[in-house]
Amino acid sequence: MKTNLSMLVILSMAACSAFAGATPETKKIAAKEVELPKDFRQWQRVATSYRTDKNSLRVIIANDIAWKAMQAGSKNFPDGAKIGKIAWKEKHHEKWPAAIVPGEFQQIDFMQKDSKQFAATGGWNFSRWLGTDLKRETKDIEGQECLACHTAVKDSDYVFTQPAMMPK
Amino acid sequence: MKTNLSMLVILSMAACSAFAGATPETKKIAAKEVELPKDFRQWQRVATSYRTDKNSLRVIIANDIAWKAMQAGSKNFPDGAKIGKIAWKEKHHEKWPAAIVPGEFQQIDFMQKDSKQFAATGGWNFSRWLGTDLKRETKDIEGQECLACHTAVKDSDYVFTQPAMMPK
Repeated sequence: MKTNLSMLVILSMAACSAFAGATPETKKIAAKEVELPKDFRQWQRVATSYRTDKNSLRVIIANDIAWKAMQAGSKNFPDGAKIGKIAWKEKHHEKWPAAIVPGEFQQIDFMQKDSKQFAATGGWNFSRWLGTDLKRETKDIEGQECLACHTAVKDSDYVFTQPAMMPK
Repeated sequence: MKTNLSMLVILSMAACSAFAGATPETKKIAAKEVELPKDFRQWQRVATSYRTDKNSLRVIIANDIAWKAMQAGSKNFPDGAKIGKIAWKEKHHEKWPAAIVPGEFQQIDFMQKDSKQFAATGGWNFSRWLGTDLKRETKDIEGQECLACHTAVKDSDYVFTQPAMMPK
């Protein structure tokens, strides 16, 4: 028993040491493995957009932490803030062609704030999940391509979306 | 006590008689006085659209009764179904002009199903509420102008919106 306990202590110390000594490479792997937020269907709807450069319609949603920051007019999102952008290919309504409506489901893009873990990308993790089975997009797993565009809105903490005005 | 009870019966009968004998004019007034659904912020988000003929962005929402009918693929909405369309003037995102985003809040349009009360307009009441104080639009109070366009989708119970495809 004593031996087993000692072994456990040694193993624990080894584990702690491995964690403390995480290389930047290890941290990158952690960033890659960010999980799909499972509760996004319950998030607040924030806005919508039509992207003429992507021929897609979007609905933007936010978790409570992000939503509260937006409502307070903050330009700095706290850790734990999550924002999602649901995108569909555009199509013209069959019976009203002047209306552009959601066609095929494309993807959901998420931004998740953790100012320490994702310091290399402005404090945000960017992830894209493709198709109705929400398969992780791996092309820009580090989010550098996302960040390149989002840098245009660095002053609003890399977030493009402003909440759509609503009646009180 | 006996007299009071008799009075109550007589009054009740008078009330029933008044209800049964409602003229079409009375029914029209009832339709006009439809209330703003106060709980619309909690409704399901169904879709979004960009109207090139109105230069506006919309988010379409539905109460539980309408949402369940949509999910079941029904082309006939039950009484109590309510659908809302929130509209904003379009504007181009300052930092990403190819993105059309919600500008000034315009209105919310509601359709409320009551196949008897609103039989003259396809079983639906159409109402529009303008500006952030949601003031009742009175121009088309009978909904005939609304119905004229919605007749294009009579086969789907006068409803244009199809729910946007979402991951399960």
